[in-house]
Amino acid sequence: MLNYPTGKPGKTGEQTLIRNPNLSKSRLGTSFEQALNESNQYYLQHNIAIIHKKPTPVQVVKVDFPSRNKARIVEAYYKIPSTTDYNGIYRGQYIDFEAKSCNAPSFPFSHLFRHQIEHLRNVAKMGGIAFLLIEFINKQEVYLLAIDKLICCYEESLSGGRKSIPYAYFKEHGILIKPAYAPRIPYLEAVDQAFFPK
Amino acid sequence: MLNYPTGKPGKTGEQTLIRNPNLSKSRLGTSFEQALNESNQYYLQHNIAIIHKKPTPVQVVKVDFPSRNKARIVEAYYKIPSTTDYNGIYRGQYIDFEAKSCNAPSFPFSHLFRHQIEHLRNVAKMGGIAFLLIEFINKQEVYLLAIDKLICCYEESLSGGRKSIPYAYFKEHGILIKPAYAPRIPYLEAVDQAFFPK
Repeated sequence: MLNYPTGKPGKTGEQTLIRNPNLSKSRLGTSFEQALNESNQYYLQHNIAIIHKKPTPVQVVKVDFPSRNKARIVEAYYKIPSTTDYNGIYRGQYIDFEAKSCNAPSFPFSHLFRHQIEHLRNVAKMGGIAFLLIEFINKQEVYLLAIDKLICCYEESLSGGRKSIPYAYFKEHGILIKPAYAPRIPYLEAVDQAFFPK
Repeated sequence: MLNYPTGKPGKTGEQTLIRNPNLSKSRLGTSFEQALNESNQYYLQHNIAIIHKKPTPVQVVKVDFPSRNKARIVEAYYKIPSTTDYNGIYRGQYIDFEAKSCNAPSFPFSHLFRHQIEHLRNVAKMGGIAFLLIEFINKQEVYLLAIDKLICCYEESLSGGRKSIPYAYFKEHGILIKPAYAPRIPYLEAVDQAFFPK
């Protein structure tokens, strides 16, 4: 979840407003999400992978039926996602990841929910491919960070260590994804490198 | 998608109102969806599988910020789901299915979107586990129907054949899932039988 589905978030700080770390800095990631969706579309059309973004979870409270051919939701609230944003199948395997945008010098853990990290860890335990995709907006760089590399830092943060992952850590332990024409973010090449070493 | 998230659909025919076959007869399936979600919870807690229902896709048009700690969606519409309702990982493999409720004597294809069937077919082609779970409410029976068994009937229907799958077909080609205490719908036993023959 990188942005509101409308692309029109409120003007004041989203993080406070809806108590959802996933929506903080939401404006930053719009084009990243768009580029990822286009990449997934490319992978699908070329029979390379089936990976979709999950819909943003919404708790519907009230629905009106203004006319016979319309159901209009008139009261609803954003919910905390129970898992990650993207999942699917690649090279016959289950693939699952969260995508986030941030600015250097570091990626703050507050952009992720604890249960999302647990989810990715469980996926890896079950034999799935689990990772983060992080866009450093000011660097114009995207990194894949496998879940095991994330867990190290995360556990340190829980026991009093730093609450973010420095950019240098991504440079050392992540895989840089170079933007391309099609797919725009060829992240499955990085997946090959990280999870299917030759 | 078996029902509105609120569980309070409008009183008039949902199918016409929102032009969404997935929401037709939506009231019928509420308890089935609930039972499936509880089953998935059981499988998750016992480290058997990680399978989640995807959120119902909603197109948000307008969001209000009535106070500093709230974002209220005041105009939104249900969207057509791009894939199926459930996916995840089981026995190291990608698993993907759609769950529907209906009444005998048959399951109508109008309860599924064509692109959902195509999606399941693609999943199977890529080596994933793909199937339908159908609850026959008046029979109080649930069947798993593997995608290849579904495709046969579906292709017949496209070339002028019957527009539904008769109950007898499920009895012959599907796998009956007997309700239990926990998990309430032990459908992964049927998956074992259909996709991991001994």
